[in-house]
Amino acid sequence: MSDIGLFEAMYSARAIRKLSADPVPQELITRVLEAATQASSAGNAQNWVFIVVRDPERRAKLGAIYRKASDIASAVYAARGRPEHMSEAQYRLLMSTGGWLWDHLAEAPVILIPCLRQRAMPAREALPPEISYDAEFAYLDRIRGASIYPAIQNIILACRALGLGTVLTTNHIRCEDEVRAALGIPAEIASFALMPIGWPLQNFGPLTRKPVREVAYADKWGEAWAD
Amino acid sequence: MSDIGLFEAMYSARAIRKLSADPVPQELITRVLEAATQASSAGNAQNWVFIVVRDPERRAKLGAIYRKASDIASAVYAARGRPEHMSEAQYRLLMSTGGWLWDHLAEAPVILIPCLRQRAMPAREALPPEISYDAEFAYLDRIRGASIYPAIQNIILACRALGLGTVLTTNHIRCEDEVRAALGIPAEIASFALMPIGWPLQNFGPLTRKPVREVAYADKWGEAWAD
Repeated sequence: MSDIGLFEAMYSARAIRKLSADPVPQELITRVLEAATQASSAGNAQNWVFIVVRDPERRAKLGAIYRKASDIASAVYAARGRPEHMSEAQYRLLMSTGGWLWDHLAEAPVILIPCLRQRAMPAREALPPEISYDAEFAYLDRIRGASIYPAIQNIILACRALGLGTVLTTNHIRCEDEVRAALGIPAEIASFALMPIGWPLQNFGPLTRKPVREVAYADKWGEAWAD
Repeated sequence: MSDIGLFEAMYSARAIRKLSADPVPQELITRVLEAATQASSAGNAQNWVFIVVRDPERRAKLGAIYRKASDIASAVYAARGRPEHMSEAQYRLLMSTGGWLWDHLAEAPVILIPCLRQRAMPAREALPPEISYDAEFAYLDRIRGASIYPAIQNIILACRALGLGTVLTTNHIRCEDEVRAALGIPAEIASFALMPIGWPLQNFGPLTRKPVREVAYADKWGEAWAD
């Protein structure tokens, strides 16, 4: 099996929003999903579920929900304004390519929805008195992403290695009840991303990122990291 | 620069808790951090900060905090009992190797703490009346992990490629105020992981994971994925 270099994959896994409608072989999707499952999760519980939507009618439903969620996003972005870290040109590019997906999601041959079953809390009365049930609940809520986004990053990298384009989006969570209804997702399951997957109509390529010295500290907050 | 295959890295990046106390060259850590920054983040905002703790006194402080947090974890695990998905032997192994780190964290030559600056909410009065401020707040809270755990997965994979061991832990969040005080982390910054990094005293190797057919559905919840 072909295997591109790890660093090559990480340094070129650009967010790909424009995808061909051509189908993707089932075995490639299985390969991507198996890569996802190699990630770690809290207590190695692997409480993840991956819903792979290829049926055109369900994709159309998801496309309509995504369009509605994007209208909310669009209003929020407008209210927030251009973020400090972006130039006017970068901001316009993000808005226009993001916007493209808002209208074309359903055309992607595969829409992957990574979900997570919430980890069970111990019974309140089973906890020793010195431990706060509420604090523990807040902690579990805070770390939920640790059990699904590492797998999602593996999906992004595996797609890149296989020549497939994808992008991590979350907008659909703004209309989660409708997504649940469209796919029959039970109430105790939460989705954490919606990822169109297909053959890319954009190039992979180098990414624009802040340099390490701007985002790393040595030993304590505010102490420059000499890279 | 050497580059191992992407799939090889993903399929052997075992959680490594036993680390040599030998130092790790600065340039390798910078390489790991640069790999982290290649990940995506919401709106490409890159609101991440990576604190690299090598100073022995600060590591000792973190070790003591981690020990305290682990006592809480230990009580919670005992209250919860062995999870269904684990055999008695797997559970004992997790408890014993997890427990080893509880006592030995400070010996790791590098303790990396990935943090995230919370994304700003738009002003309440700037939002159109049909959009709920509270719903938007809950949404942003829900997707926070999407802007830091992909970078953390890149750290795990980059360490693997460079022959370094690491593990994603989150226990320290149970004592976050003490971690803030020890490292001078401002209140508006949240940490999402604590990762000891060093030369491994355990082998990398194949991982035990549920098969794809047990964790993937086709088109809707409950519909088997034929892999």
